[in-house]
Amino acid sequence: MNGAVDLPLGTAELSFTAAGDALVRRTILPSGVRVLTEQVPGSRSATIGFWVAVGSRDERAADGVHPATFGSTHFLEHLLFKGTPTRTALDIAISFDAVGGEHNALTAKEYTCYYAKVQDRDLPMAVEVLSDMFTSSLLDPVEFDNERGVILEELSMAGDDPGDVANERFFEAVLGDHPLGRPIGGDPDTINRATREAVHEHYLANYRPNDLVVTAAGAVDHDELVAALERALTAGGWNLTVEAAPVERRSRTSVELAPALELTVVQRPIEQVNLLIGARGLVATDPRRSTMSVLNTVFGSGMSSRLFQEVRERRGLAYSVYSFAPSYSDAGLFGMYAGCSPSKAPTVAELMRAELGRLASDGITAEELRRATGQLAGASALALEDSDTRMSRLGRAELTLGEFVDLDEALRRIARVTAEDVRVLAADLVAQPFSLVAVGASEEADFAQAIDLPPTSDAA
Amino acid sequence: MNGAVDLPLGTAELSFTAAGDALVRRTILPSGVRVLTEQVPGSRSATIGFWVAVGSRDERAADGVHPATFGSTHFLEHLLFKGTPTRTALDIAISFDAVGGEHNALTAKEYTCYYAKVQDRDLPMAVEVLSDMFTSSLLDPVEFDNERGVILEELSMAGDDPGDVANERFFEAVLGDHPLGRPIGGDPDTINRATREAVHEHYLANYRPNDLVVTAAGAVDHDELVAALERALTAGGWNLTVEAAPVERRSRTSVELAPALELTVVQRPIEQVNLLIGARGLVATDPRRSTMSVLNTVFGSGMSSRLFQEVRERRGLAYSVYSFAPSYSDAGLFGMYAGCSPSKAPTVAELMRAELGRLASDGITAEELRRATGQLAGASALALEDSDTRMSRLGRAELTLGEFVDLDEALRRIARVTAEDVRVLAADLVAQPFSLVAVGASEEADFAQAIDLPPTSDAA
Repeated sequence: MNGAVDLPLGTAELSFTAAGDALVRRTILPSGVRVLTEQVPGSRSATIGFWVAVGSRDERAADGVHPATFGSTHFLEHLLFKGTPTRTALDIAISFDAVGGEHNALTAKEYTCYYAKVQDRDLPMAVEVLSDMFTSSLLDPVEFDNERGVILEELSMAGDDPGDVANERFFEAVLGDHPLGRPIGGDPDTINRATREAVHEHYLANYRPNDLVVTAAGAVDHDELVAALERALTAGGWNLTVEAAPVERRSRTSVELAPALELTVVQRPIEQVNLLIGARGLVATDPRRSTMSVLNTVFGSGMSSRLFQEVRERRGLAYSVYSFAPSYSDAGLFGMYAGCSPSKAPTVAELMRAELGRLASDGITAEELRRATGQLAGASALALEDSDTRMSRLGRAELTLGEFVDLDEALRRIARVTAEDVRVLAADLVAQPFSLVAVGASEEADFAQAIDLPPTSDAA
Repeated sequence: MNGAVDLPLGTAELSFTAAGDALVRRTILPSGVRVLTEQVPGSRSATIGFWVAVGSRDERAADGVHPATFGSTHFLEHLLFKGTPTRTALDIAISFDAVGGEHNALTAKEYTCYYAKVQDRDLPMAVEVLSDMFTSSLLDPVEFDNERGVILEELSMAGDDPGDVANERFFEAVLGDHPLGRPIGGDPDTINRATREAVHEHYLANYRPNDLVVTAAGAVDHDELVAALERALTAGGWNLTVEAAPVERRSRTSVELAPALELTVVQRPIEQVNLLIGARGLVATDPRRSTMSVLNTVFGSGMSSRLFQEVRERRGLAYSVYSFAPSYSDAGLFGMYAGCSPSKAPTVAELMRAELGRLASDGITAEELRRATGQLAGASALALEDSDTRMSRLGRAELTLGEFVDLDEALRRIARVTAEDVRVLAADLVAQPFSLVAVGASEEADFAQAIDLPPTSDAA
């Protein structure tokens, strides 16, 4: 090809060449383990990730008998670094540090990923250590209590970051009671109440062979990786001869949510107000994702974007101002951010909504469309120089999208977007109720006008 | 070679192959403009930077007649994006955004750098636009006042970040009245009092041909770049036929500073205390820099480091904990950071000092030395995959070090470091007075013991 390739869960072997001569291969082992690689010619390093499609959204709420397990996915992620029967926490750290590799993990709302970036010769080590962590973590009770302290400090650090606080509150405001609206790490209360048993249950239930997706990109040979992985997982005690189908992907249809129109002010005695305004966006598999990419680029990405030009360049009201459009399996968001002084915050809020209103009424110019296409193409080409980006793209393809879209096909989809598509999507966005979150020295009354702006084109 | 190459200012042409087959070339034009390139085989993108060796340390203090110009270097950096006779601010932004390039600038204590990362075909555009900004910025008075607002917001944003505040206060505490101790961006008072005239003077005085250093790495042809640059700078109004020697490098000898033993507590109603403890370190050209790299790696870089193991893994007292050792032409620092709850901060402070004391008395093991060497080698190899890192290395070589050190030579220097070298350096560090900065809900009295710990080996 160059193009898009479906990734059916029932197909054991897939192989194709993506744009730029990278060879993509996928193997589904009989046990349900999935391995995807993208071998990049000339690369001297590799990034590898071990994924499960379980994130904070999958955690259990309190039910009167059991406390909420909110934060347990993230707790488990920490504990996987704390030792196995054959490796202490220090051994694990040394394995990667001694070769100057990067290794870390990421808990998200819909997945958890453990990854490492190493030189080509160190990839077998990375496979062994990550496999050991994945199959054989002890979740030692003493380490469990130690790590509780670390996680509480991590939550405190995030709590002291007004941008992080605004972002968490924004998800809550826009998504309401939807599980995607919850913060990823839980809160001090759920972490203090977390038990080793609950986290261990989570581990047993979600870290099985047919949950595991391994993706690797860069200097990687697919057959060697599959063989090394089979050896390492078996050494970790997994019986890969027991057949199982890979776990089904999540439902990919958008859920009906009650309309959100939240105004949340978190008062803090700080200099800036961290302002977020937004509404529901698109799910990850929505065919309008390419349109959203163009919209977000023209509207709020980069120094030439409308938000940057209007709020910062023409008026000097903010240093940081942008828009964003995260998407998940069954919900998405569209948001606008600015950090500014409290006295300017109402004006900035109204300006941002008015700019979006103008997009909905007047659309974008042919020149803006052309420029956005170039921006997305160039930025994607630069990003794909890193094996990290390619490793993540493979994970997203397998866990969320169900198809692999190479750069050429992504750009073809972008090229089909019209200015009118963008205007219509902007009109759909502004037709929704908007939520506003402000963290800083503001009052709710400051934003009465901004949040009440008629969400139609006359907002301009 | 592979190795280290001196970069004498009187030599017009230099050319050599660095480790890994990258071709490094330097040209000094008769006007004093310096151009350094590192052509990396197989690369499809390039990073280019325009540097001047002027930073916040070079700004003028108030003298009773003139107000301080603190922050004017950073103010000027902002203004260079605001337009020339042939390009508006929007034109400049569009140039890079339309090709998906990254472009930005960085004001540091000893230099200012304007840079862009683009695909190979877009490098000529980057040269043209950056040259235009560098030679022909208008510093328009209306834009000047607009940008004042943006910079005040940027300062507010940094003021709301307790880690940033701690870092700025730490430089002040350790370096005292030395110009390197001042914050880079000035403060609201100096920004409010800044005049277009003062910033314009700064521009005329420091952005001359013999100040300019251009470095580029990745997919770059040296001769083509030099030619393109000569055309673009001439188009910008520079007369490159007027001969001038490149500006001399800064003095590279360490200055005598009064002993520092500051205890600074910035009270904030936040959850964590951002704690920094440290002392004077090494200047950039100190022959013990390799020893410091090993020390810092073993002591405070990565999950296997002593600080991470002692403070986080064994005791769960902090999420983020590390050490760092920035160096400048005539001064340097060594610091230890932790973010933790106020009740634990005194313990963490004492632990960190005690760990450094243990390093000074007992040194490091052969195994730690071997591991640090591997860590530095691997991390450097991975970092050099990015043309950004190579572009920055060239700038640092030309502006600060006066020699280009390739990866092989850097590793040879690291390999010569002995465990005893590290112990002796640690002993030199702990023999100094230590400063402590805490930002958060702490009192000065909390740290009386930590700061009074005897700064010798019995601290263990």
